[in-house]
Amino acid sequence: MLGALINGESDQQIEVADRGLNYGDGVFETIQIRNGVALLWQQHLTRMRHGAARLKIPFDDTTAALFLSDISVLANQFNATGVLKLILTRGNAERGYKIVDNPVTRITTLSSMPDMSDLHSVGISVLLCQTQLARQPLLAGIKHLNRLEQVMARSEWSHNGITEGIVCDTDGFVIEGCMSNLFWIKGETLFTPRLSHSGVIGVVRNLLLELCVKEQLLNISEGFYSIQDLLNADEIFVTNSVFDVLAVKEIHLDQNSVNSGLSGQVFEFGAKTRVLNSLLQQYYLKEV
Amino acid sequence: MLGALINGESDQQIEVADRGLNYGDGVFETIQIRNGVALLWQQHLTRMRHGAARLKIPFDDTTAALFLSDISVLANQFNATGVLKLILTRGNAERGYKIVDNPVTRITTLSSMPDMSDLHSVGISVLLCQTQLARQPLLAGIKHLNRLEQVMARSEWSHNGITEGIVCDTDGFVIEGCMSNLFWIKGETLFTPRLSHSGVIGVVRNLLLELCVKEQLLNISEGFYSIQDLLNADEIFVTNSVFDVLAVKEIHLDQNSVNSGLSGQVFEFGAKTRVLNSLLQQYYLKEV
Repeated sequence: MLGALINGESDQQIEVADRGLNYGDGVFETIQIRNGVALLWQQHLTRMRHGAARLKIPFDDTTAALFLSDISVLANQFNATGVLKLILTRGNAERGYKIVDNPVTRITTLSSMPDMSDLHSVGISVLLCQTQLARQPLLAGIKHLNRLEQVMARSEWSHNGITEGIVCDTDGFVIEGCMSNLFWIKGETLFTPRLSHSGVIGVVRNLLLELCVKEQLLNISEGFYSIQDLLNADEIFVTNSVFDVLAVKEIHLDQNSVNSGLSGQVFEFGAKTRVLNSLLQQYYLKEV
Repeated sequence: MLGALINGESDQQIEVADRGLNYGDGVFETIQIRNGVALLWQQHLTRMRHGAARLKIPFDDTTAALFLSDISVLANQFNATGVLKLILTRGNAERGYKIVDNPVTRITTLSSMPDMSDLHSVGISVLLCQTQLARQPLLAGIKHLNRLEQVMARSEWSHNGITEGIVCDTDGFVIEGCMSNLFWIKGETLFTPRLSHSGVIGVVRNLLLELCVKEQLLNISEGFYSIQDLLNADEIFVTNSVFDVLAVKEIHLDQNSVNSGLSGQVFEFGAKTRVLNSLLQQYYLKEV
């Protein structure tokens, strides 16, 4: 971690009474900083505000302005290209689930950007995880701090050749990656899972869908799909706010496939994936 | 909070990089201290160990011994009757869900015991909550730090006359209270929800079931039940490690019922509930 601000003060520690620790009672955002600019800031802000509202955590314009001020401090201090993480918790409280009217805790940290240039050029291998996501409309879509399902899914592999894991929900529908949203292309249609019952609705995910509609590039189909639908794809890619777009070149269906050293099911790093990534990068150029 | 130890040191703060904060990546226990003795310590330890194993968090005999040492320090310092909270997180890490081999974080806090003598003598009113628990076998039963469902359920009422909320799962089966396990008696049978898909398997819950079997007091039926099954009960009570047993004297079926000031459905603080609580208190006498 390059730097951290707690409620605007340079600090690395939070109170043990914080509900973020005790209950995962908060929301967070992971944001790419490029040349000192927080990419898609408005979109991240909107999602955080939406998540806080769902959890009944106060999030007013002052909080938004203070986060922006935090970002400015860290970005200037480290002349940054890196990864911001913003956390908003419901603040400190005595024991018990009851919500009390205490000030929220605002945490802003900056970490260095991982080098993923190799992965961007050739694509990634992914594992189909055994861990299933619960179907919980109350918490679906928002980026809250209850992330044990992702931790457990990510714990299924340690092989460095695997970059991401694909997870299904408890009904067997394919949902997302551990840390990313999932897309695939079949013919002239871009498919992506519906995230009404589980998963996190990514900022890059939504922007890509918007750009795709605006440019009339591909038909869009959002729904509940099986693993077989995914495996029948022409091209597959995952998105998040740190690596933008990564093409999936290989899917291992289980850990045996990874450990055997044999190839998983192979996919092409296709032309349409490249076009979609270009659209996104062009959009960023307007921001930076 | 009367006192807090972080990894054995008197402190009130944890690192912002702690995975307990970032992902709710840990387990906890709430334990009643009576005359300096941590009630049901072995049972709490067993559950914490089991929960840690499920989450692949290291929990060895040294960790257990250190927690016991923490408890001793706090109990002596405050000559305590109170409520202990133990938290074990996976410790600090850089950004990302991947588990790294870092030391765990051990948090032990002591709070004063809430005065619930009135509630013990007359029973409690409860609200049937709208919030539903997801069905997630991977996390069911253990006392992990992902507790947003409980926070949301508890946020449904602010009326001081309501002590607890009853929650169902997303299939409509009645599961537990926000902070307690649920039992009811019909005829000669003690009913309690099966917690294989959601809910926390309470230490007092399991002990009561054991004592009930040992004393051949009532038949036991654990399963998936509807709200109607609950409402048909002769007696209802909830259990946890802080208040032991509280009889339910009234169930409000919705918030309108609470706000109208009218009575909900009324239940008797029955003889069998009293006998079960006596069994538990006798068991404690052997410990204290």
